[in-house]
Amino acid sequence: MPFIVEPQTMHFAAPLALQSGAAIADYELRYETYGKLNAARSNAVLVCHALNASHHVTGMYAGDDKSQGWWANMIGPGKPVDTNRFFVIGVNNLGSCFGSTGPMSPNPATGEVYGADFPVLTVEDWVAAQARLVEALGITQLAAVMGGSLGGMQALSWTLQYPERVRHAVGVASAPNLSAENIAFNEVARRAISTDPDFHGGDFYRHGVVPARGLRIARMLAHITYLSDDVMSRRFGRELRSAVAHSTNGYRFSTQDIEFQIESYLRHQGDKFSTFFDANTYLLITRALDYFDPAAAHGGDLTQTLARTQARFLLVSFSTDWRFPPARSREIVKALLENRRPVSYAEIDAPHGHDAFLLDDARYLGVVRAYFDRIDGGGA
Amino acid sequence: MPFIVEPQTMHFAAPLALQSGAAIADYELRYETYGKLNAARSNAVLVCHALNASHHVTGMYAGDDKSQGWWANMIGPGKPVDTNRFFVIGVNNLGSCFGSTGPMSPNPATGEVYGADFPVLTVEDWVAAQARLVEALGITQLAAVMGGSLGGMQALSWTLQYPERVRHAVGVASAPNLSAENIAFNEVARRAISTDPDFHGGDFYRHGVVPARGLRIARMLAHITYLSDDVMSRRFGRELRSAVAHSTNGYRFSTQDIEFQIESYLRHQGDKFSTFFDANTYLLITRALDYFDPAAAHGGDLTQTLARTQARFLLVSFSTDWRFPPARSREIVKALLENRRPVSYAEIDAPHGHDAFLLDDARYLGVVRAYFDRIDGGGA
Repeated sequence: MPFIVEPQTMHFAAPLALQSGAAIADYELRYETYGKLNAARSNAVLVCHALNASHHVTGMYAGDDKSQGWWANMIGPGKPVDTNRFFVIGVNNLGSCFGSTGPMSPNPATGEVYGADFPVLTVEDWVAAQARLVEALGITQLAAVMGGSLGGMQALSWTLQYPERVRHAVGVASAPNLSAENIAFNEVARRAISTDPDFHGGDFYRHGVVPARGLRIARMLAHITYLSDDVMSRRFGRELRSAVAHSTNGYRFSTQDIEFQIESYLRHQGDKFSTFFDANTYLLITRALDYFDPAAAHGGDLTQTLARTQARFLLVSFSTDWRFPPARSREIVKALLENRRPVSYAEIDAPHGHDAFLLDDARYLGVVRAYFDRIDGGGA
Repeated sequence: MPFIVEPQTMHFAAPLALQSGAAIADYELRYETYGKLNAARSNAVLVCHALNASHHVTGMYAGDDKSQGWWANMIGPGKPVDTNRFFVIGVNNLGSCFGSTGPMSPNPATGEVYGADFPVLTVEDWVAAQARLVEALGITQLAAVMGGSLGGMQALSWTLQYPERVRHAVGVASAPNLSAENIAFNEVARRAISTDPDFHGGDFYRHGVVPARGLRIARMLAHITYLSDDVMSRRFGRELRSAVAHSTNGYRFSTQDIEFQIESYLRHQGDKFSTFFDANTYLLITRALDYFDPAAAHGGDLTQTLARTQARFLLVSFSTDWRFPPARSREIVKALLENRRPVSYAEIDAPHGHDAFLLDDARYLGVVRAYFDRIDGGGA
């Protein structure tokens, strides 16, 4: 029986002060909830999304078989985060392009689409906006906040911004900040988008175009960093898309046509992405990733930074993730241990690279299930 | 006292048959030589270049202090490859953009610039063209052929195409073929170039433009893969270009302006590159990299492939090179050992990633020096 879900929208009239000094008023957040909030309002779990995802965490929309949520293997009835016990909230972040207010929305101050004028956001801003939504849903303390990759950064930030409002924080394939190499990849993607002539300084909407070339390049590049060298070799290797008989090694001898399966796969990913993802959102979200660095305010001392947390933690990393390698999760674990905070840590030996956080891996899903089984869901 | 050198050009009228089935006639190769060919003509060393480099391996051009060759720390008077003993040849590959015939040259068949019509080349084609040059210089057997990265692939191919003409082969930071991830990065770079509206299908010359946006992206991306995560962290980390007072963490809060030093560095590299490198050459050379796979003709069996080699080998790899990691060099070493071929192998613990093959590292330079000291230079 399909698990049918429905998105909702909440409007916020009061201005939200942003880290940049700007503020945003009259914004909406698109969100979904799964399961039932118990009488004590103690079984709520907030799920934070990463770059490409949305509030649509699990379940399907009525009449649309292909609309399965992005973390359906993790969250739902009988899943590791069991919506028969927990009231789970998925929310599309401010500035994203799946229903919450973002660069494609009208700016109430001008009546025009925001475009390049949409304020630059941080992980802390997202968490502040999520906190308002959680409050509006009548929840004063979350049983857990969880996320993978950038979602894990939001979970970490919750424990710093609202220590008393989070009982458990679960961060998968995450990091306490980006490395220079991470920032470098983001910058190449941003430059591909912002130097696309169809970008028009971010105001492409009014020109009736989309910087699709730049978005394709950005997505192709990002996709490489989501996979491990190993899994790419196993899945694609040097396989040709269509070998030419009577040619050396079967090559077509073209620099612009597709020769290898890996090229075909990447181009397909890029093409698909460029049809639905907003270019300004891509810039905003990668920038928020770059900016996240809670330890900076403490001279880079992560231990001192995490002293204010009150949550219990589960951190999970994957052996072949070279975007946010296990060493980055271990930095967080070490800083928590030095603060004598309760932390569980699992380093999963998985071949899939960073993408592993979205995939079925019995050990990974088992670890999360075991952790949530111990969390008091209030018997709902 | 500066080591002054001068480029030369050799013309080849006879058609060169290419692996694609095409042929190229009336082509020129730009080259340089250093040191003196001995009477026995037995002390010649051919240096093969990688993606961005040229025939200008060492020394300086008269009156130009900034014209030092790209491997001046390795090759020259008193250097590990000592031009007081060896006669060293540097050659710009066919299809490159530093003086040899390439996409910017006129096609003798039409009188127009080749552009997109320049034939697609392989490593084997380059080696065949180099062999003609070596022959024309009166050399029947090279004391050594050497190169780093793609240059190492050419050295390996020499030992397969002309086994009896190579006494020693030196391959640094190389691989027996590209992995799916390597091809993927090349493809993103090529797509950035070929989807730049100024590319015009490769015939941009006649439009009086250059696909500079695409070249910038290609170079920024390639540059990331040349460096290790570690060296990027040490050199740039999360350092800001110019922190703004009274702003959270010193950020400017812009998605398009430069915030981090690593962004500034990459943009500079991209800008510089786009002013001198030909876009069609970039496509051609990355494609030649993709295509190189001598074991393919032997069902992927590298041991069987290398059975025909007669040279002695030195292979060098660097611990933090994630483009061509040590494991790729070890594949070659293993296949040579299984053929009972004499091979020396050094795995250098260096922080610099793939770029290490161009840098000063005492152990690396020492290994190459010791190897060449044992090569008979004919007492020249």
